[in-house]
Amino acid sequence: MHKLVLIRHGESTWNLENRFTGWTDVDLTPTGVEQAKNAGRLLKAEGYEFDLAYTSVLKRATRTLWHTLDEMDRTWLPVEHSWRLNERHYGGLQGLNKADMAKQYGDEQVLIWRRSYDTPPPALEANDPRSERGDIRYAGLDPAQIPLTECLKDTVARVLPYWNDTIAPSIRSGKRVVIAAHGNSIRALVKYLDNISDDEIVSLNIPNGIPLVYELDDDLKPIRHYYLGDAQAAARAAAAVASQGKA
Amino acid sequence: MHKLVLIRHGESTWNLENRFTGWTDVDLTPTGVEQAKNAGRLLKAEGYEFDLAYTSVLKRATRTLWHTLDEMDRTWLPVEHSWRLNERHYGGLQGLNKADMAKQYGDEQVLIWRRSYDTPPPALEANDPRSERGDIRYAGLDPAQIPLTECLKDTVARVLPYWNDTIAPSIRSGKRVVIAAHGNSIRALVKYLDNISDDEIVSLNIPNGIPLVYELDDDLKPIRHYYLGDAQAAARAAAAVASQGKA
Repeated sequence: MHKLVLIRHGESTWNLENRFTGWTDVDLTPTGVEQAKNAGRLLKAEGYEFDLAYTSVLKRATRTLWHTLDEMDRTWLPVEHSWRLNERHYGGLQGLNKADMAKQYGDEQVLIWRRSYDTPPPALEANDPRSERGDIRYAGLDPAQIPLTECLKDTVARVLPYWNDTIAPSIRSGKRVVIAAHGNSIRALVKYLDNISDDEIVSLNIPNGIPLVYELDDDLKPIRHYYLGDAQAAARAAAAVASQGKA
Repeated sequence: MHKLVLIRHGESTWNLENRFTGWTDVDLTPTGVEQAKNAGRLLKAEGYEFDLAYTSVLKRATRTLWHTLDEMDRTWLPVEHSWRLNERHYGGLQGLNKADMAKQYGDEQVLIWRRSYDTPPPALEANDPRSERGDIRYAGLDPAQIPLTECLKDTVARVLPYWNDTIAPSIRSGKRVVIAAHGNSIRALVKYLDNISDDEIVSLNIPNGIPLVYELDDDLKPIRHYYLGDAQAAARAAAAVASQGKA
């Protein structure tokens, strides 16, 4: 039996400001730092050990991982970064306020943008200053790999090759893995692992900074999953995520 | 032409307390954090870019690297940890005060322990609670690889395989490399790169937190080297390192 731990980054400055973030590289708030440290303290208290950590190339996930490892006294663990674990790209919505958008376009349209499986938000123009196409961290990619918007289906499509080619083989080889990532890259993984339907994934929300443990069999099929720590607090935090897009 | 940047970690709690540290995993002081951030600011201001970072498995070097990368907005860079970049193991002196030892054994004996190329300090007993043989981060090593004491010659012998097998091939392949490490693992590298004699290496000191740039030719032979920032401050900091072992 393998245990895989997933951690959504702690609260970011744009979570706090209720703005669509996507690939914009905003940092954690002091609350987010505290959530990340608490994730590390929980994992340490429960006796978790890891051989390898994966994270995105966005600092809110990296810093969450660093604080987690720091609290576990495991700052020396190998860490692999991949753009494939980045948050879903939010296209032309990146930087805009979720509640403002709900007032302007209605709760329903914002829910579609936030949670529709296959309808992406309006795309960024390639020359939009918010586009990541000039960002040095993506310089090794084919420009066509750098999204201008994504629906969750698109996120699943670019997360899964990294799962299949890199993370799953590590876990199969016996390595104990933690992934610090984002609401939607984690939803993409969870959808795949638990074989959640396109309709049902809409209502699944991942709270910030609470370790989500998957117990996997030898074929990496989930046996069960659970949040570490206070289960009610995790449920409240997930419900708060669900309500962010309302006017 | 290749540029290689070496950074000795910022001031650690045991640097401040003037204690022999070695493989003991002490953290940075607030001054050390500031030195690390300043290293990042200097590198950023001078337009340095890296593709890859190497560091030890000790947190004072890792944290120095993290702060450096953070200031450069490069938290997403790949980082590889190796025990081979650890500080020289200080054997039975680990944890003891340098000036106390100088009072007890004389300045000359302490200078021999600190700087003799081939005379190690007294060894730890394998069952000494200060020994790292039960430390999970070294669990993958043959116990015989985990030192109980080291002279600089020993440190050179375990740093060079990592240089030859891992770091040098990266640099030759065109990758721009930064190494955040320790006074003696950096002295080991510098001795090798500059072909410094066993006698002359005794008087070479590396200041904390100041980027040391090596310009290397295609055969990785040094063309020149220099500290970034205030050269006089770097010289004063190196002189302060030299004087630590005096009563």
